[in-house]
Amino acid sequence: MADSIAINETNRLISSDKVEGTSVYNRAGEKLGSIRNFMVEKRGGKAEYAVLEFGGLFGLGADHYPIPWDMLDYSTDLGGYVVDIDKSRLENAPRYASEEPAYDHVYGREVYGYWGVPYPFV
Amino acid sequence: MADSIAINETNRLISSDKVEGTSVYNRAGEKLGSIRNFMVEKRGGKAEYAVLEFGGLFGLGADHYPIPWDMLDYSTDLGGYVVDIDKSRLENAPRYASEEPAYDHVYGREVYGYWGVPYPFV
Repeated sequence: MADSIAINETNRLISSDKVEGTSVYNRAGEKLGSIRNFMVEKRGGKAEYAVLEFGGLFGLGADHYPIPWDMLDYSTDLGGYVVDIDKSRLENAPRYASEEPAYDHVYGREVYGYWGVPYPFV
Repeated sequence: MADSIAINETNRLISSDKVEGTSVYNRAGEKLGSIRNFMVEKRGGKAEYAVLEFGGLFGLGADHYPIPWDMLDYSTDLGGYVVDIDKSRLENAPRYASEEPAYDHVYGREVYGYWGVPYPFV
């Protein structure tokens, strides 16, 4: 079964290091930023947030927006992720600059709640 | 809730880029290699394999062993993952050198089957 689209990617799976650095666009095709990293459950192995990096230069002064993984949709046309977010919604979204939040369930519910995505983690 | 153990890690979650490069040991404390990357479902976000890199110099000539994510157990003592594998079991394990396999369900079942882990992906 030849389902390889490119190195480190198939129709169904993507490599962790390919996700990192991938550009993120909104539905209008505007670039919002790129994925810095994503947070994975140690036990279950389920990705909880992808961290969208936005603004700044080489990561300095950048803002970081945790986005529920399920909001990411890969577009082969754009060569990046498309999320249903306009820039105005990012203004009030949960974010951090340099100091990371305690990624706990309280914070998780805040992030998922803001984006209107049911929080599936226990 | 102060559950941050270190940058990019909590009791429950770990950052994708922290997994990559982490050392892997067997139960006897022998170093087997390190995690090169891991493959994640694009839709569900569930990690399927971690790729254990073993041997070679700076990735040249190294062998790559896909390991079911659930076999990884993090040890704060060792500062790395512990897997219940002895070196002799790696000898016949599914692996590849430079060319990646088509990561499809056939291959997935082969990998999970070899390690005796139920294959949960559909």
